[in-house]
Amino acid sequence: MPNLQEVVSDIADEMKARADRGEVATYIPELARVDPAAFGIAVIAADGTVAAAGDSDVPFSIQSISKVFTLTLALGKSGDRVWRRVGREPSGSPFNSIVQLERERGIPRNPFINAGAIAITDLILSGHKPREVLGEILRFMQFLAQDPSVAIDEAVAASEARTGFRNAALANYMKSFGVLDNPVEYTLGVYVHHCAIAMSCRQLATAGRFLAHDGRDPSTGHSVVQAERARRINAVMLTCGHYDGSGEFAYRVGLPGKSGVGGGILAIAPGKASVAVWSPGLDRAGNSHLGRVALEALTRRLGWSIFGA
Amino acid sequence: MPNLQEVVSDIADEMKARADRGEVATYIPELARVDPAAFGIAVIAADGTVAAAGDSDVPFSIQSISKVFTLTLALGKSGDRVWRRVGREPSGSPFNSIVQLERERGIPRNPFINAGAIAITDLILSGHKPREVLGEILRFMQFLAQDPSVAIDEAVAASEARTGFRNAALANYMKSFGVLDNPVEYTLGVYVHHCAIAMSCRQLATAGRFLAHDGRDPSTGHSVVQAERARRINAVMLTCGHYDGSGEFAYRVGLPGKSGVGGGILAIAPGKASVAVWSPGLDRAGNSHLGRVALEALTRRLGWSIFGA
Amino acid sequence: MPNLQEVVSDIADEMKARADRGEVATYIPELARVDPAAFGIAVIAADGTVAAAGDSDVPFSIQSISKVFTLTLALGKSGDRVWRRVGREPSGSPFNSIVQLERERGIPRNPFINAGAIAITDLILSGHKPREVLGEILRFMQFLAQDPSVAIDEAVAASEARTGFRNAALANYMKSFGVLDNPVEYTLGVYVHHCAIAMSCRQLATAGRFLAHDGRDPSTGHSVVQAERARRINAVMLTCGHYDGSGEFAYRVGLPGKSGVGGGILAIAPGKASVAVWSPGLDRAGNSHLGRVALEALTRRLGWSIFGA
Amino acid sequence: MPNLQEVVSDIADEMKARADRGEVATYIPELARVDPAAFGIAVIAADGTVAAAGDSDVPFSIQSISKVFTLTLALGKSGDRVWRRVGREPSGSPFNSIVQLERERGIPRNPFINAGAIAITDLILSGHKPREVLGEILRFMQFLAQDPSVAIDEAVAASEARTGFRNAALANYMKSFGVLDNPVEYTLGVYVHHCAIAMSCRQLATAGRFLAHDGRDPSTGHSVVQAERARRINAVMLTCGHYDGSGEFAYRVGLPGKSGVGGGILAIAPGKASVAVWSPGLDRAGNSHLGRVALEALTRRLGWSIFGA
Repeated sequence: MPNLQEVVSDIADEMKARADRGEVATYIPELARVDPAAFGIAVIAADGTVAAAGDSDVPFSIQSISKVFTLTLALGKSGDRVWRRVGREPSGSPFNSIVQLERERGIPRNPFINAGAIAITDLILSGHKPREVLGEILRFMQFLAQDPSVAIDEAVAASEARTGFRNAALANYMKSFGVLDNPVEYTLGVYVHHCAIAMSCRQLATAGRFLAHDGRDPSTGHSVVQAERARRINAVMLTCGHYDGSGEFAYRVGLPGKSGVGGGILAIAPGKASVAVWSPGLDRAGNSHLGRVALEALTRRLGWSIFGA
Repeated sequence: MPNLQEVVSDIADEMKARADRGEVATYIPELARVDPAAFGIAVIAADGTVAAAGDSDVPFSIQSISKVFTLTLALGKSGDRVWRRVGREPSGSPFNSIVQLERERGIPRNPFINAGAIAITDLILSGHKPREVLGEILRFMQFLAQDPSVAIDEAVAASEARTGFRNAALANYMKSFGVLDNPVEYTLGVYVHHCAIAMSCRQLATAGRFLAHDGRDPSTGHSVVQAERARRINAVMLTCGHYDGSGEFAYRVGLPGKSGVGGGILAIAPGKASVAVWSPGLDRAGNSHLGRVALEALTRRLGWSIFGA
Repeated sequence: MPNLQEVVSDIADEMKARADRGEVATYIPELARVDPAAFGIAVIAADGTVAAAGDSDVPFSIQSISKVFTLTLALGKSGDRVWRRVGREPSGSPFNSIVQLERERGIPRNPFINAGAIAITDLILSGHKPREVLGEILRFMQFLAQDPSVAIDEAVAASEARTGFRNAALANYMKSFGVLDNPVEYTLGVYVHHCAIAMSCRQLATAGRFLAHDGRDPSTGHSVVQAERARRINAVMLTCGHYDGSGEFAYRVGLPGKSGVGGGILAIAPGKASVAVWSPGLDRAGNSHLGRVALEALTRRLGWSIFGA
Repeated sequence: MPNLQEVVSDIADEMKARADRGEVATYIPELARVDPAAFGIAVIAADGTVAAAGDSDVPFSIQSISKVFTLTLALGKSGDRVWRRVGREPSGSPFNSIVQLERERGIPRNPFINAGAIAITDLILSGHKPREVLGEILRFMQFLAQDPSVAIDEAVAASEARTGFRNAALANYMKSFGVLDNPVEYTLGVYVHHCAIAMSCRQLATAGRFLAHDGRDPSTGHSVVQAERARRINAVMLTCGHYDGSGEFAYRVGLPGKSGVGGGILAIAPGKASVAVWSPGLDRAGNSHLGRVALEALTRRLGWSIFGA
C-alpha cells in the first residue's frame, strides 16, 4: 500500500501544474471570481489519518454537494415518504433541465438534480420558518464537519441572479403540479442559502465520513444514519451524483461521489475513506474537471474501487 | 455469516410462493410461452462453493444479459475505440427508445440499451462473416460457463418478429448516421442470435465469475480481462444495467447487475460472488420483478453491498 | 346565399341542445364557475350586418384571444423586431409546454402559446409602468369593440393561482435566457390582466373586423394596421391559433381563428365577416368544443373557406 | 391587375440573378448533381392562361410534392379511415424526425412528414402488388398533368441510400406499433419510387389545378375530388406542407403549398391559379429557398393571399 500522504501530495502537485483546468462557472457571478488555479484535496482514512495537500483549508462554495446532506436530513425526518416527491433514477439530462418534469408530471427524477433538490428542501421546510430550517441545515453541517465555523457565504447566496430564474422556473413548475408545499420564494430562499455554504476540503471530507462507515462517524462514534441508509445514499450518489456525467465518474473513478458547480467533489470509499477535492474549472457536464482527474489518479494508485475484489 | 445454501433455499421457497410475479414479456412470442412460476437462483462464492435452489439448472433465454459479454469481447478487440460508438451514461429512457438517438446524432448512450448493444455487435462483426462471429460469441460463453453444451435457442431467435421491427428501426437509424459499418440485416442477425443464447442460472453465474474477481476466474486461474477492465464493466452494469430501473436496482440491491427480458439477472458481488437469478415476470421497466426482489433479500441477509463498509 | 341570421339562429339552437359540451376549464377557479350551457354567436358581415344568437351579449373571459390584439399592438410598436423574441411556427405541443423552450433556448415558437404571449406582453411593457400598459391594452380593446364599457374581470385575474405557477415557470425560464426585459412579476401581472378582459361575442366580433378587411374597420374607415400586416396576423392565427389543435381547426373550419380557455373563439372570414362564438366547454387541446363545431357548421352552410374557390 | 406573364418573367430574371440560393440536398446523391442555378416557374390561371419563365419545362424530382397526390388517392380509396393512420397537426419537428413517433405510439402527426407519407403509401398499397400500385400513382399524375410522358427517374429512386436508412427506421418503427400493414420493403419501394417522379413546373402546375378550383380541373371539367375535400387538402398543405417552416410559408406567401427536397414547390391560390416553382437550393427547414422567395414576390405583386379581403 503506497503512503497516503505521498500519493495525495503527488496528485496535488500534478494537478497544480496542469493546463487543462475546465471552465469556471460564470452563471453565478460571485463564483466566477474564484481563482481557477486553486486545487485542494483531503482524504480521511478509516483510522482517522488525514492526508491533505494544496488548498485543502480554503473554503469554497459547496453548492450541490449540500444536496447529499439535505437528502440525509429529509430521510431522517420523512423516511421513505421522500420518494413520493422525487425518484431515484439518473436523469439522462443536464442538471437544470425542465423537460423531464413535463414528461413526468412535476416529479423530479432524483434528489441531486436541481429540481429534485428543491423538492427535498421544500419537504424539510414544511411547517417551519425558512430561517429556522436554514439554521438546522447549517448546524447539521457544523456537527458533521466537527467545526462550528462552517458558514453560509451570503455574497454567493445573493449572487445567484441568473441561475435563480432557472431555479424559479423549476420550482414554479413543480408547484403547478402540487409537488411543493411551501411558497416558492421560501423554498428557493432556503435552497440558495444551503447551496452557498462554504467549506474546505478538510471540513467536507470530515462531514462525509458517516457515509464511508455505514452511517457512523468513527472518530466520534456518533451514528448519523443506519447502515442501510448510508449505503442507499451512496447508491444514489453513484447513479445520480454527477448529473449527466454520472456514468463517466463511475467508470473512471469507481466510487460514489457528488459534485458541485463550485468545483468541489465529495467521494466515498466505503470502509476506507472519505475524500474531498476542489478545483473550480468545470467540464461540459458541470462537474469539476481536475477534481475528477485527481480522484481517478487517487483510486488507481490506491486500488480503491467499489467495483473491484 | 449465515449459511449460504440455507439463505438461497429460503429465498427460492419464498419467491416460489409469492403471487406478485410481474408480467412475462409477450412481444417475443416464444418467450411468452415460458412458465411464469419458474424461479431459479445460483450463487458461486469466491472459494468456488455453489449454492443453488429452484430451477437453477433450467436454461432460459439470457437476452440482454448477453450484452455484458459482447461488450467484453468488443473491448478485447477494439479497446477504447468502443467508446467512439457508444457512450456510457444512463439513458433516462426505456430500453428500446429512439428519442435519444435523434438528439445525440445516432450515438447510443450506453452499450446496454438495445441501440448500444446493436452498435457493439456491429463493431464485433466488422470484417467478418456473421456465422463466424456468432460462433465466436457462443464459444466465449461456453468457455466462460465451462460448459460446451451452452447453445442458441433457434426458436427464440426466429420469434423476435415484433421486437424485430423496433430493433430494425434502431439499427437503420444508426446506419443513417454512419454509426454501423455492416449491412443492417447482418448486424441484426448476429444480435438476435446472441440474445437467444439459453443458459441456466448455474451456467450464467459461472460465466460471470471473472467480473467478481478482477477479471480472473478463480477456478481456472484464467485471466479473461485485466482488473481495471472488469471493474469498469461492473461500473457500466451498475449505472446502465437495468435500463430506466438502474437507479432502483442500485438502491435496493447494491450490486452491479444486468437484466434480460427473459427474466434473468446476473449480479456481481466483487470479491465475494457471482450470482444469477431467473424469474420470467417483468416489472414496468422491463426487469425481472422477483429476480430483483430475490437479490435484495440475498444482499440484505448477507450484508453484501458495494456501498457499505 | 342562405339568410345569415337564420343560419346563425339555427346553429345556436342546435348547439344549445347538444349534450357533448366538452369540459369547462377548472384550473382557473373563477372560470370553473361559468354556466356550461352557455352558447353565444355573433357574425358581422362586410356591410355591417350583425347576425347574433344565444348568449351573444353576455361577457365572457376572452383569455388567449387577447393575444391577437397584444400581438397587433407589439407589431405596431416594434415592427419586425417582434420576431426576434418569438417565432411563428406551430409548436406541436400543448399551450403551456416548457419543453420547446429548453430545446430552443428560451425563444417561444409563436406568439399564441402562453410563453410567446408572455414574451409579447414583456415587449409591450418595456420602459413603461404595468398600470399604464394595461390601460393602453384595455383602451385598444374598447376602441376596436367600439364600446368603452369593455373591462377587466378582476375576480378572474385574481383567480389564476394554479395556472399562475405554470406561467411563472415559463416566464422565469425565458428570463433565464434573457428573453424578457422586465421583472417577471410585472410582465405576468399585465399578462394575467389582459387575459382577464371580459367581452361579449358581439363586442369581440366587432373588435376583430379589421382582420377581416385588410386592416381597416369598414364601419369607421379607421385603418388599424396595413393590409399586409392584417393578412400576416391571420396567417399566424391559422397555423398557431388553436395550440395543438390548429391543424384540426384549419381542416374543419377553414378560417383563421384564435381560441381562449374561457370558451371563446374569434374567427376571420377575409372579405366576408368577423365571427365570435362562445361555449365554455373545452376539448382535449384546450379549445372550445362546441365553438369549433358551430364554426364548422357555419362555414359549411355559407360555403366560407379560405381554401376554396 | 399587373400582367401575369410580365410578373412571372420579372421574378424569374430576379431569381436567376440572386446569389443566395440555399443548399442543394446532398443526402440523395443523384439530387446533388442538379444545377443549383436552375430556376423555373409556371402559373396557370383560372381561365387556363399559362405564364411561365426560366426552366419551366425542365423536369425535376418532385419528391415530397408527390405526397399531396398520394394523400388525394388515399382519401379516394379509404375516406376518413386515412385519419386513423395519420394525424393532421403540424409536427413542430424536422421532416424526418422519429421523436414524435415514440411519443405518439407510431401514429405520424400528418401525411406530409416522411413517416406520415410512408403510412399513406402503405394504406394505398394494401392488398395490391407494389408494381401495380406504383403504376396507379404514376397514371394518376399523368392524368392530372395531362401528359403521359411523366415518368419516374429510376436513377434517383436507386440513389436514396442514405435517406433510405432513415426512412427504413421510420417504417420499421411504425411497423412495430402495427401502423403499417405491408412488408416494410414493399411500402418503402413504392414510397421511394413515387417520390422519384420527375415533372416540370408546367406539368406540376397543371396537375395541381383541381386544388385551386374546388376539386375540378377547369380545362377538362373533370371532377377529381369533391369541393370540400379539395379545401381540406389545401388546409393540410397550409399547416403542414413545409415541415417545420410551414408557419413561415403561410406568413410570407399566404397560400397553401407543398415543397419537396428536389427544390420544387406547388402553391395553390384558390379560385385564382395553380403555381409551381423550382429552385434546387434549400433553406434550413429543407424547403426551396428561392422557391419561397419567388412565391412571396408573386403573391405580393398580385395581391394574392388567402388571408386577405
